[in-house]
Amino acid sequence: MISKKHNFGAGPCILPSTVMEQAAQAVLDWNSNGLSILEVSHRSVEFESVITKTQLLVRELLNVPDSYSVLFLQGGASTQFSMVPLNFLKKGRKACYLDTGYFAKKAIKEARLFGDVEIVASSRDKAYCYIPDNYELSHGTAYLHLTSNNTIEGTEMFAFPKVAVPVVCDMSSDIFSREINVRDFDLIYAGAQKNMGPAGLTLVIAKNSFLDSVNCELPSMSDYRIYRDNNSMFNTPPVFSIYVSMLNLIWLKEMGGVKEIEKLNISKARLLYGEIDRNSLFDGLANLAHRSRMNVTFRAKDERTGAAFFELASERGMVGIRGYRTVGGFRVSLYNALPLESVEALVVLMREFEQMVACANTVSHLESVR
Amino acid sequence: MISKKHNFGAGPCILPSTVMEQAAQAVLDWNSNGLSILEVSHRSVEFESVITKTQLLVRELLNVPDSYSVLFLQGGASTQFSMVPLNFLKKGRKACYLDTGYFAKKAIKEARLFGDVEIVASSRDKAYCYIPDNYELSHGTAYLHLTSNNTIEGTEMFAFPKVAVPVVCDMSSDIFSREINVRDFDLIYAGAQKNMGPAGLTLVIAKNSFLDSVNCELPSMSDYRIYRDNNSMFNTPPVFSIYVSMLNLIWLKEMGGVKEIEKLNISKARLLYGEIDRNSLFDGLANLAHRSRMNVTFRAKDERTGAAFFELASERGMVGIRGYRTVGGFRVSLYNALPLESVEALVVLMREFEQMVACANTVSHLESVR
Repeated sequence: MISKKHNFGAGPCILPSTVMEQAAQAVLDWNSNGLSILEVSHRSVEFESVITKTQLLVRELLNVPDSYSVLFLQGGASTQFSMVPLNFLKKGRKACYLDTGYFAKKAIKEARLFGDVEIVASSRDKAYCYIPDNYELSHGTAYLHLTSNNTIEGTEMFAFPKVAVPVVCDMSSDIFSREINVRDFDLIYAGAQKNMGPAGLTLVIAKNSFLDSVNCELPSMSDYRIYRDNNSMFNTPPVFSIYVSMLNLIWLKEMGGVKEIEKLNISKARLLYGEIDRNSLFDGLANLAHRSRMNVTFRAKDERTGAAFFELASERGMVGIRGYRTVGGFRVSLYNALPLESVEALVVLMREFEQMVACANTVSHLESVR
Repeated sequence: MISKKHNFGAGPCILPSTVMEQAAQAVLDWNSNGLSILEVSHRSVEFESVITKTQLLVRELLNVPDSYSVLFLQGGASTQFSMVPLNFLKKGRKACYLDTGYFAKKAIKEARLFGDVEIVASSRDKAYCYIPDNYELSHGTAYLHLTSNNTIEGTEMFAFPKVAVPVVCDMSSDIFSREINVRDFDLIYAGAQKNMGPAGLTLVIAKNSFLDSVNCELPSMSDYRIYRDNNSMFNTPPVFSIYVSMLNLIWLKEMGGVKEIEKLNISKARLLYGEIDRNSLFDGLANLAHRSRMNVTFRAKDERTGAAFFELASERGMVGIRGYRTVGGFRVSLYNALPLESVEALVVLMREFEQMVACANTVSHLESVR
């Protein structure tokens, strides 16, 4: 193990240690060819085989139909927030959004610059602790936009709507963590820096007929068709991020693919949620039915107890567990590369901490009655 | 030396071997803190100090006035081609472009989607082998757009126009290679993958008053002010590319800064151009006054001789010397990190090759008269 810490960070996040080792070697000397991966031309035969292999791995791991394109972009999901409506929100039509959290809200804000946007359902009323599922789409809907996993609030969609309009989904924080049916979506986008690779890369999986429905001229770097027609190399792509993503997807394939990692992710999430529910000191934040397997949000019942647990966990080499500033409490991320051992260590610490608090309370009670 | 090849590639290009070593170490374990640079949060104190230090190094090395902002973006210069007119080409005004090559032409194409664009001068008539300098700007010019170095054609601007309108300059392939006066420009942009760092990062240096002249709401990721107001961390930045850029700029500072590297770059360019001019087999492509110090373009007088030289150079471990497909011949890039020894090796080979060709010609002449 290279990393001696338990990295529960929400992203950029833990990647497998073998991937780190291979990536470091490639920075020194890539494939023993006398060049670093950082200094190779993106037009070289060697790099072209990397980008092709990465595309094929995405296709294989997610079972992407031939009628879809796999594209590599830059700028993160935040760039997609505006690129989606720029491409698909045509005049006289309406984009429908599910408002399920902080990033969904950001996507809505950007879309509003491009045209008519309707929030068809929102869980804002309950601090985004659930995924609303009762909504109707009006006539003339250009697309429905979903966020499959809400990184900050710790909720996840386990069922996707079957609707008659194109479905666009931000899967930044749970792509490659579980099986999906790509055919349920017309366009999927994801910042790479969770389960795919390092920051600086955005994955887009799009149905070709959806891309072909765009019939206006757009700035090249905001036009999905340009990426498709140029094998994602209209200009210099983020070479290193793509390379490390390839290594990581090879690792995922060797682990048994998405099906197997999903089982492991379910185990990790069950273990941690089980302890949160059992432990007298903590409360989970998300509704049971929508608890995210990627980002587990919880809170200490008592604020001072929470601060003490944060201190203790930090001392034990656990990083990235602080909740997002707008939510507070704890957020523990259980991405693909996080070993079960890290979750076990956290759960053991939570039990230990409960006993410590109980003892301290007993002592203080005894002192008060003495 | 890690790289055992002479890397004359046009970009992504050679970086100093010490930078590669430090980068590889950081991928394994960054600052001995038990985490890889690929898995640290961009919101961590540690990474915030990286982004701040990188900004300060840019300011120091290019002597950036306080009235300018230093921003880190994604998407390369190609994204800037549309972002510049989106921000600054106001209705009723005109953007003026100098058409000096392949990338200038691309910038012009993107700008035309946003409004009125005028090509005030072009060197297209002579295959872009020179930089035109005789032009006038009409009333109502929103900005003048320049390309300081034309990577493909091998020309470079050594004097910048003093005009009464804002000047925007694409410095992708010569930034940090020579001293510039930032005050000559209102906005400078550069893809990082030449003299700054790995692919996946774009540097923007912009006068604050120019940014403040934008008075409309824009998509966040296309709004320079958002980057300024969020310390380039509105969303997850390309962490690794910024980190390696920091290492590279530290290296540049230790080399004596831009002033000293410029001297070395002049020496390297002189040596190679000297040989091109002396050698009976080759012709330089750019006009003498505009010969780029970064990208040296030349051609063999005889096509078959050129192919033979390409073979020979490849055998000797020289990579990235093939001219761009639209230009042909050779393009040898002499970026900051390319050691003088690599240029010397190339020059020696060119001499050697000239003798080989002369001998072969003598032999074939003798055979023909025998």
